[in-house]
Amino acid sequence: MESRAIVTSVENHVEDPEYRAGIIDLLGALGLGELSAFQRLAADAELAPTLADQAALAGMAAAEYRHFERIRDRLAELGVSVDEAMGPFREPYAVFHAKTAPSTWLEGLVKAYVGDQIGTDFYREIASAVDEDTRALVLEVMADAGHADFAVDRVRAAIEEDPSVAGRLALWGRRLVGEALAQAQRVAADRDALTSIIVGSAGRPGMDLAELGRVFARLTENHAKRMAKLGLAS
Amino acid sequence: MESRAIVTSVENHVEDPEYRAGIIDLLGALGLGELSAFQRLAADAELAPTLADQAALAGMAAAEYRHFERIRDRLAELGVSVDEAMGPFREPYAVFHAKTAPSTWLEGLVKAYVGDQIGTDFYREIASAVDEDTRALVLEVMADAGHADFAVDRVRAAIEEDPSVAGRLALWGRRLVGEALAQAQRVAADRDALTSIIVGSAGRPGMDLAELGRVFARLTENHAKRMAKLGLAS
Repeated sequence: MESRAIVTSVENHVEDPEYRAGIIDLLGALGLGELSAFQRLAADAELAPTLADQAALAGMAAAEYRHFERIRDRLAELGVSVDEAMGPFREPYAVFHAKTAPSTWLEGLVKAYVGDQIGTDFYREIASAVDEDTRALVLEVMADAGHADFAVDRVRAAIEEDPSVAGRLALWGRRLVGEALAQAQRVAADRDALTSIIVGSAGRPGMDLAELGRVFARLTENHAKRMAKLGLAS
Repeated sequence: MESRAIVTSVENHVEDPEYRAGIIDLLGALGLGELSAFQRLAADAELAPTLADQAALAGMAAAEYRHFERIRDRLAELGVSVDEAMGPFREPYAVFHAKTAPSTWLEGLVKAYVGDQIGTDFYREIASAVDEDTRALVLEVMADAGHADFAVDRVRAAIEEDPSVAGRLALWGRRLVGEALAQAQRVAADRDALTSIIVGSAGRPGMDLAELGRVFARLTENHAKRMAKLGLAS
């Protein structure tokens, strides 16, 4: 990913209120994503077959909370409260999680892994379009919270034991991506400032359609690779 | 509290398998208490009126998880798994939390504060009866996870705004203590090794009945003080 950052921090960019609004939206969406992930991982931990597994998911939740804290602190530096910045994204995340509430431990694991990673990929792509300070923060909070190895290990073992679960989990993975895309589109339609960070605005270049297409191709490709790693068709 | 520790670590006390079993029970009960507190605080966070309040409760949950990790690591040093040590206490904690699931944000806050603190007092009293290493660990994980000020502040503000909530919350506080005592008695009846840490066994002195009475008097007194701090009758 090539950097298109034209400034080193949001503060240096006060002459462009739309850019500042877009960054606050970006941090708000990202921060609420971390807080929602905390809530979901904590809830899904209760589906765990053993206390050790429950603790492993609780630990991932705690890692997401620490990421949330970093975003909250950055928003405070920018003089924006958690509720102001994250409030607008409450509904889309709530709908996504309500529509993808796992009913089994394995569904919870696939969601923790696939859902988290596709979000990570997406925010990393956006990071290429923002100032250096914001990019560093986004990349930092997108660092792996340990979901990957744990989920891959447990899901593969479950499929080995009972191959029939693979079909249902593959469908589940498709549903997760579908619901995530539906909510992402809704956010893109509602939040102009956020969208303008990606596609640009007068005086600030952004991605053109061909670049956007490549971004989505990369997201889909990485998703398929992760499903394969779990032993699932995508 | 005067220390009755006669050894500096469990490892130095291998000649007394009952003592070792009791310490593992103590750490298991304590560790599962932290993991359960994590789960409950995370679930109750969803009742929060604002995202900032939700985040505050999520932060307390994350602090409980870090306490759980310290216990888990100590159990690993003693060669005991999380499920071995904590499994026996799964049922009592599950029953306690099922019977005291808060239906409002304020009930959740009172539970976070009062429930957590009475547990803390109880484990601190027990700590006076164990070896130095174990005592240091118990006191460390019993350090305030930040529940107190936040809960007191929010509950007092709510009562000021609508004094009628005080009666219901006072009843709720009594129910929390009642259910906690019921489960503690159940554990005491089931786990001889744990009980023997408190009341002693052949060759290792413990608390006599008068001391036990004083412990319970202190627990009740501290509980009443905390309810008063919240603006509630106990």
